Amino acid sequence: MPTYKAPLRDVRFLLNEVFDYPAHYAGMPNGKDADPDTVDAILDECAKFCEEVLAPINLSGDEEGCRIENGAVTTPKGFKDAYEQYVAGGWQGLSHPAEYGGQGLPMSMGLFKTEMMGTANWSFNMYPGLSLGAMNTIMQHASDELKNIYMPPLTEGRWTGTMCLTEPQCGTDLGQVKTRAEPQADGTYRITGTKIFISAGEHDLAENIVHVVLARLPDAPAGTRGISLFIIPKHRPAADGAVGEFNNVVCSALEHKMGIKASATAVINFEDSVGWMIAEENKGLEAMFTFMNTARIGTAIQGVCHAELSFQGALAYAKDRRSMRALGGKKEPDKVADAIIHHADVRRMLLTQKAVAEGGRAMIYFAAQYADHMTNGIVENDARKYKHWDDKLGFLTPIMKGFLTEMGLESANQGIQVFGGHGYIKEHGMEQIARDARIATLYEGTTGIQALDLLGRKVLVMTRGGAVREFTGMIAKFAVEHMANAKMRRYATPLARYAAEWNVLTMRLMLMARKDRDQVSAASHHFLMYSGYVTMAYFWGLQAAVASDKLANGGKESAEFYKAKLATARFYFDHLLPRAKGHASSMLKPSRSLTKLPVEHFAFE
Amino acid sequence: MPTYKAPLRDVRFLLNEVFDYPAHYAGMPNGKDADPDTVDAILDECAKFCEEVLAPINLSGDEEGCRIENGAVTTPKGFKDAYEQYVAGGWQGLSHPAEYGGQGLPMSMGLFKTEMMGTANWSFNMYPGLSLGAMNTIMQHASDELKNIYMPPLTEGRWTGTMCLTEPQCGTDLGQVKTRAEPQADGTYRITGTKIFISAGEHDLAENIVHVVLARLPDAPAGTRGISLFIIPKHRPAADGAVGEFNNVVCSALEHKMGIKASATAVINFEDSVGWMIAEENKGLEAMFTFMNTARIGTAIQGVCHAELSFQGALAYAKDRRSMRALGGKKEPDKVADAIIHHADVRRMLLTQKAVAEGGRAMIYFAAQYADHMTNGIVENDARKYKHWDDKLGFLTPIMKGFLTEMGLESANQGIQVFGGHGYIKEHGMEQIARDARIATLYEGTTGIQALDLLGRKVLVMTRGGAVREFTGMIAKFAVEHMANAKMRRYATPLARYAAEWNVLTMRLMLMARKDRDQVSAASHHFLMYSGYVTMAYFWGLQAAVASDKLANGGKESAEFYKAKLATARFYFDHLLPRAKGHASSMLKPSRSLTKLPVEHFAFE
Repeated sequence: MPTYKAPLRDVRFLLNEVFDYPAHYAGMPNGKDADPDTVDAILDECAKFCEEVLAPINLSGDEEGCRIENGAVTTPKGFKDAYEQYVAGGWQGLSHPAEYGGQGLPMSMGLFKTEMMGTANWSFNMYPGLSLGAMNTIMQHASDELKNIYMPPLTEGRWTGTMCLTEPQCGTDLGQVKTRAEPQADGTYRITGTKIFISAGEHDLAENIVHVVLARLPDAPAGTRGISLFIIPKHRPAADGAVGEFNNVVCSALEHKMGIKASATAVINFEDSVGWMIAEENKGLEAMFTFMNTARIGTAIQGVCHAELSFQGALAYAKDRRSMRALGGKKEPDKVADAIIHHADVRRMLLTQKAVAEGGRAMIYFAAQYADHMTNGIVENDARKYKHWDDKLGFLTPIMKGFLTEMGLESANQGIQVFGGHGYIKEHGMEQIARDARIATLYEGTTGIQALDLLGRKVLVMTRGGAVREFTGMIAKFAVEHMANAKMRRYATPLARYAAEWNVLTMRLMLMARKDRDQVSAASHHFLMYSGYVTMAYFWGLQAAVASDKLANGGKESAEFYKAKLATARFYFDHLLPRAKGHASSMLKPSRSLTKLPVEHFAFE
Repeated sequence: MPTYKAPLRDVRFLLNEVFDYPAHYAGMPNGKDADPDTVDAILDECAKFCEEVLAPINLSGDEEGCRIENGAVTTPKGFKDAYEQYVAGGWQGLSHPAEYGGQGLPMSMGLFKTEMMGTANWSFNMYPGLSLGAMNTIMQHASDELKNIYMPPLTEGRWTGTMCLTEPQCGTDLGQVKTRAEPQADGTYRITGTKIFISAGEHDLAENIVHVVLARLPDAPAGTRGISLFIIPKHRPAADGAVGEFNNVVCSALEHKMGIKASATAVINFEDSVGWMIAEENKGLEAMFTFMNTARIGTAIQGVCHAELSFQGALAYAKDRRSMRALGGKKEPDKVADAIIHHADVRRMLLTQKAVAEGGRAMIYFAAQYADHMTNGIVENDARKYKHWDDKLGFLTPIMKGFLTEMGLESANQGIQVFGGHGYIKEHGMEQIARDARIATLYEGTTGIQALDLLGRKVLVMTRGGAVREFTGMIAKFAVEHMANAKMRRYATPLARYAAEWNVLTMRLMLMARKDRDQVSAASHHFLMYSGYVTMAYFWGLQAAVASDKLANGGKESAEFYKAKLATARFYFDHLLPRAKGHASSMLKPSRSLTKLPVEHFAFE
């Protein structure tokens, strides 16, 4: 079973050496408390909590799973205690306003925390994670009155929240939502319907659960334009803010899932439950999606988490397990065989995991600065600021969510592969990581939905290629700046070439899509993965530049760390980036390669 | 839960239209009974057994798993009954000699059977599958006396067999085997040791279990050259051939695995158990590996099985589930939304599964003819014939085992992806397929071992590139023959180019490896996957040629089937084959991209 150690050295490299977070925080209105010493202390404390409290109940949580009896859900042994410690530590309100009891730190700090918690125990992380989603939505769309009721207990963690979107007949296509909300004379609504796949929908960690629910008013137009957003607490808040009357919110079942078994995935029935509308009538879907970019970064992080945890497990095993001799000659002649880490192909697997974990982390830490600015736009009620940063984040979000979760799953599978047959056995904990990772490409919008969002919406419709031009402009600038440096040329040259190619591909797809809308769907997956490989290449280039610079300037203290960064960057450019070639080729193939086969002729008996 | 329908139309396309099995069987000494009518009847009967008996206990078998109590293992509900029907049908001896009670049909028939059984229920298929491995080894290496004792009950299926190789300290590196065999005055041996990961090692399906075991004589040289091969029955055979005295073969535990849960994976302790040596002293490893190519094809088939089953499940769901509208315009305007099969990206996933299942099946059916000739070389005691066909098969084996199991896993994951969140829920049966598929890249030699076997052993050392030259010669010839055909040019042109490139890459690697042996390991994975993509492209080219020819010659009866073949071939060339580009690039990158990073600097705290 992998023993989690928070990768603090890498975190600090990104924070202080690559992205200059001290300056970033210093320039933010809510950044004054995030001084380097405080950030350092929080990271240390978070690491300790994750290593000592969350990681030890990860495997046991998977084995035990959640149980339901008469609608009451019991989380696995140790979860309730861990959650109490989480609440006591004030972790839930880390990035939420002080007026509701939070610590008021920038949004990015919450993302760093999520990575550590999620690596140590993704299932546990789902409970506070969903609550954060509900909190963000309430913060932005609810009235002050409702915020004053719900935000304090949610910020404290005494209550938790959920997002209730999916119904049996629809997940992606929320226009098909059927849950009905009947307006009442007192301004509340009575809501009836069934929601499925509700993460943290029912559990024993908190005294109340606040559901944020999509439902339809009686006279609402059909489709996505007739959906409104409601708060429906499991227990209605009493006048004094305590937990009041039961609100007919019934958990009728838990799903039996492939993984994240310690995370309760509930079927929730609302039976004439009292709800309060937030956001504008019939504009619930828009409101629900405002914080979608942030929520999706939360899921993108899952790719990093599973790559990191699986890497830590595989690395320990590869140093310990002995098999055969390295082809280049015996590495440990006094031993019965060489440790498998000496085999180049085993290194290929380990370095894939390492490159994905660290490259993905760099992408997240970069995007987290956008998220900070975007969130401040909301807090400051500055719509232009909000839109500017949300747009920038909006381009990166589907790339990160789609690409990093796919790569996280691959990395988790590589971890099993390093273990050989032992990877298939539960007690080692490696197969759990792959099962837990498998959900990440499915929820919060499947990879296919991310791909459509990226190519169809963000690139072609919203910006006519402008988003790619802007982002590749940054890559090209970096490439030009580093081309003259002999140590950096091996990264700068391909980056310049890919930056140019990405634009060419975008333009060609734009032209093809004008005549054939199916081309957007046909090319979307390849465009997403291509974008992911090139984006990650840029972030490896960035890290290589810093490492190279530090080494050139005598950074002896961490010389081995910087050398490892360069070795990993090199690996990425040699062994992972070339996959972009195949995607570049396939995305330009005409859509009829996919659409021509009639539905009834996919199979013959 | 996918309802399995045996893909008999595709099977017959390969048998009769692509590979001309009637002529192949007619030319074989043991092929006279495999006349087209008999083959047809057997396939129909096999399909019926798989659809009606094995498929219905696949999901329930996963849920229930195997149980152990006091060393006795109980298989899931329905398994014992299904196995009795399997024995009663005479299926175990299908391809084994009539003198031991078999039907004496060619080896290939057994492989076709394996595919159907394995698709319907891979866990079930493990029990007879391991027994076939033991039977083949005993057939080739045991004395007539031992064969007369063991082959009849094994051929009947009344007894089953296993292969006991792995020990806690070694799997890949069998030179580390510690199990000891003490010679006795009566010519038998007393064997003591622990074997792990023994599939079908203990169960309630048969009255006796015959273990084929690697062990070391007291005076044996260290390493792989000191290992001998033994038969160790769970119960010693009595004089009348019935089950005799217990032989101290103890199952001390079952492994808890990610998947194939209905297949018992046992820890087997031999405690002074009586064994009989087969094959020559200290040459047990060689003997064990004689039938390795056939065993590995058996595992390669697993890739086809999971791709096929997951495709069948995903296809049914994609026709049924409605979400959004196709980008090219509404396909089912009277419905609330279009079935998801109308989305090009969903088709990309379905066609990936279909292309892998059918392309992989074509590879298997081609290689099965080699296996027939190779097996006949053994039966006829014709060492030259055996070697000739074993060598040809030996080149394809690691490509099929490595590539098809990796693609089978990907296909199983695509099946989950088509289901969206529902794919993650156990009751749909899609996640089980991915968990079952996960073992295939691990056992019978991991993908990494296949890659080393292919590039290091088969290509560079044994044939100095000759194996690639021979195989690509066949591809090039095909390409040249079809280049003039306007309908075939889209396949012939890339095939010619890849055939040439494959040779160039091989030669370059040969030159690099002369100076740097680590390059073989560094390049091996990319070389394997490249070889797999190009090999499968050839088999899609072959299928396209037949389909195109049939259509040109008015084959109206199956016109839609042939058109679907062409559409799938086109998809393969447009969306999967281009991945070879990335592998081509990466395999030539110097090994230091992988070997340079010191072991102690893979991670920093």
